Amino acid sequence: MEDVLRIRDLPNRVGERVSLRAWVARTRSSGKIAFVVLRDGTGYLQCVVPKNEVDEVVWEGVKELTQETSVSVTGEVRADPRSPGGVELGLTGIEIIGGSVDFPITPKEHGTSFLFERRHLWLRSSRQAAIMKVRHEVVQAIRDFFHERDFYLVDTPLLTAAIGEEATTLFETDYFDLGKAYLAQTGQLYLEAAAAALGKVYCFGPTFRAEKSKTRRHLTEFWMVEPEVAWYDSDANMDLQQDFVCYIVERCLERRKPELETLERDTTRLEAVQAPFPRISYSDAVAKLQAEGQNIEWGKDLGAEDETMIATWHDRPVFVYNYPKEAKAFYMKRNPDDPRTVLCNDCLAPEGYGEIIGGSQREDDHDILLSRIREEGLPEDAYGWYLDLRKYGTFVHSGFGLGVERTVAWVCGIPHVREAIAFPRQMHRLRP
Amino acid sequence: MEDVLRIRDLPNRVGERVSLRAWVARTRSSGKIAFVVLRDGTGYLQCVVPKNEVDEVVWEGVKELTQETSVSVTGEVRADPRSPGGVELGLTGIEIIGGSVDFPITPKEHGTSFLFERRHLWLRSSRQAAIMKVRHEVVQAIRDFFHERDFYLVDTPLLTAAIGEEATTLFETDYFDLGKAYLAQTGQLYLEAAAAALGKVYCFGPTFRAEKSKTRRHLTEFWMVEPEVAWYDSDANMDLQQDFVCYIVERCLERRKPELETLERDTTRLEAVQAPFPRISYSDAVAKLQAEGQNIEWGKDLGAEDETMIATWHDRPVFVYNYPKEAKAFYMKRNPDDPRTVLCNDCLAPEGYGEIIGGSQREDDHDILLSRIREEGLPEDAYGWYLDLRKYGTFVHSGFGLGVERTVAWVCGIPHVREAIAFPRQMHRLRP
Repeated sequence: MEDVLRIRDLPNRVGERVSLRAWVARTRSSGKIAFVVLRDGTGYLQCVVPKNEVDEVVWEGVKELTQETSVSVTGEVRADPRSPGGVELGLTGIEIIGGSVDFPITPKEHGTSFLFERRHLWLRSSRQAAIMKVRHEVVQAIRDFFHERDFYLVDTPLLTAAIGEEATTLFETDYFDLGKAYLAQTGQLYLEAAAAALGKVYCFGPTFRAEKSKTRRHLTEFWMVEPEVAWYDSDANMDLQQDFVCYIVERCLERRKPELETLERDTTRLEAVQAPFPRISYSDAVAKLQAEGQNIEWGKDLGAEDETMIATWHDRPVFVYNYPKEAKAFYMKRNPDDPRTVLCNDCLAPEGYGEIIGGSQREDDHDILLSRIREEGLPEDAYGWYLDLRKYGTFVHSGFGLGVERTVAWVCGIPHVREAIAFPRQMHRLRP
Repeated sequence: MEDVLRIRDLPNRVGERVSLRAWVARTRSSGKIAFVVLRDGTGYLQCVVPKNEVDEVVWEGVKELTQETSVSVTGEVRADPRSPGGVELGLTGIEIIGGSVDFPITPKEHGTSFLFERRHLWLRSSRQAAIMKVRHEVVQAIRDFFHERDFYLVDTPLLTAAIGEEATTLFETDYFDLGKAYLAQTGQLYLEAAAAALGKVYCFGPTFRAEKSKTRRHLTEFWMVEPEVAWYDSDANMDLQQDFVCYIVERCLERRKPELETLERDTTRLEAVQAPFPRISYSDAVAKLQAEGQNIEWGKDLGAEDETMIATWHDRPVFVYNYPKEAKAFYMKRNPDDPRTVLCNDCLAPEGYGEIIGGSQREDDHDILLSRIREEGLPEDAYGWYLDLRKYGTFVHSGFGLGVERTVAWVCGIPHVREAIAFPRQMHRLRP
């Protein structure tokens, strides 16, 4: 079929007369010439309307156009090296499809609440559209990275009977005659079962935290990708993370330069993201933080401020590995060289973006895992199937989770994760 | 980094001595020679153990191996044209990593409930792993299809304040101080906003129906992909669906032949899936069904039995278009040529797999849409932002939703959607 013509197609149509449907971004006119800039999601197009070359009705119509009116325009595509796409349209005809009275989001400044309440319209602005295109690229890069490396996608359930990591931050719903179901916080436990079946697997879906948190790094609904690999230890796991993060950043630099320009992103900071990433043990990190005057005690998880300071030591992401077991989840493998710690790592993004990845080697010893479940007071029967994986051919395995919104915010250089998703969910925001 | 060696890598290592970790699928032995078949998710490998060529301890060890024991084996890779991967292993050493006593899923027949209660282990069987690999390919094909055609992925929210299509089948959860949130049944309404911003968009995520349904076509949690395209009418929408379905099927035929063989799928039925797909109006379909003796009245939605009969008229998917508006959702565009109907279509898979796609052109007239919302008794204030899309530059647009599990079940030729997802959710099933 012949597809609908879009603005991005026009550089191939120079010299042709075309018709195209789009929305009015802005207009300006003098007494003799008018300019109409259109947008259609694929680009911006300047239409040139000289008064003495068009019908009176066209000229009058153009002068009345308002922001976000949808129109069908006809004209000749002309090369124009000064335009973003390299072309402009010599407009000869215009038809209004849908009017637009007082579009609420104008070029002037608006407050954050005002904009998020109109998120369905705000997405049309050039900055927001650019973020969405970077997000698209990040997600496709994630898919391609794993597909090229022979991972299998295994979609894990969102409705779960077992709990995830923290029972206090779960959304719950009634589930027919089976009592409550909980919205998943991770697909990891299911993925471990799938790794024994398929070797290298990943899941990628929305994740939920009913957390009363208002920081710029938290959403109640966010997307997370979680690979899990049979026979990978913690070191191999960090190698994989490093390749993965480099792949995502390189892909965006390669294919989303125009969007990063729209966002005024300093891309030299992204170009520095090259393997190998520095690796520092939790214990060394704490000692160094203390030496720099941070108030952190060995045994506590790192705070946002600690993470930001560690990030400033380097120009690229950094791994902090082998945290105290009390600071981390029950399923992480006890470190044989120091049983106070577990074989795990966080990956901290540069520029204060904080943790974008948490990963670990998983406890593969049935009895140690069972004792950890009991220590944490978790419901043993809900984890029976998970313990089975250590009963029938247990195996060394590792995996991690990367948060999509934090990664997108970092790549885009935007301060808050809420702009990194089309319709953010926060404790005070459930619409539109 | 050097990656872990997997069974699928061995054809490139003929003549080499290798070590490899995997699980025992089965063993057999005579007095003089033993065979151990291993699996690791990437393939099956036969290890040959001649008694007089290995240490006594290796021979005795091999005889004791049980199903799903995890092992590390050493040996020489040898070409063997009779083997699935074209190689076998002349085993010289074996080490047990994790034992496996009485693995519950044996080659004998088990009941369905028994298997689904052990889904975390059942996934290791060759049929289930093959289904998961086809599912992976279907999903990656979906991603690639849209990416190649310059669609942008827009992840739509799962937690919503507005309702979807049917208020009676919603899961709900408490949402902080904002009252109830509902689990999304579709991302479409959000996508329509995104289509005005970005042109061609799609979402792809889990979807929920709290339906007390026990048919072989229903799950309470399933994955759906939904594209939405600015300036597509209903015909263009069907053209896109046709290209899309052909792309998915062709991709599986091209890359998943071994898995389809494992599943004993008649691939000639899939090879027939070629454009163009026949298109029949709802009215013509009803007349023809009535002529063939079906008890269907004009105005009612088609039942599963009707769909199956229509499918038998053709060797490939078929479109049924322009249903009565009473049978369909409020947002579908009124048919200007027959206002009793709406501009929509279902796509029915062959071989009795029923509806895999539902699509429509969307109502783009503000006042007609508002009156439809009122007719259906939907909460007007929840749809304010949706109506905005018709207030600020309304636009012709269309989209559809394809159900992943139904598509996977059809491609695999399996009778029930519950095997088309790793951990199915049904009204009586929430674990593992």
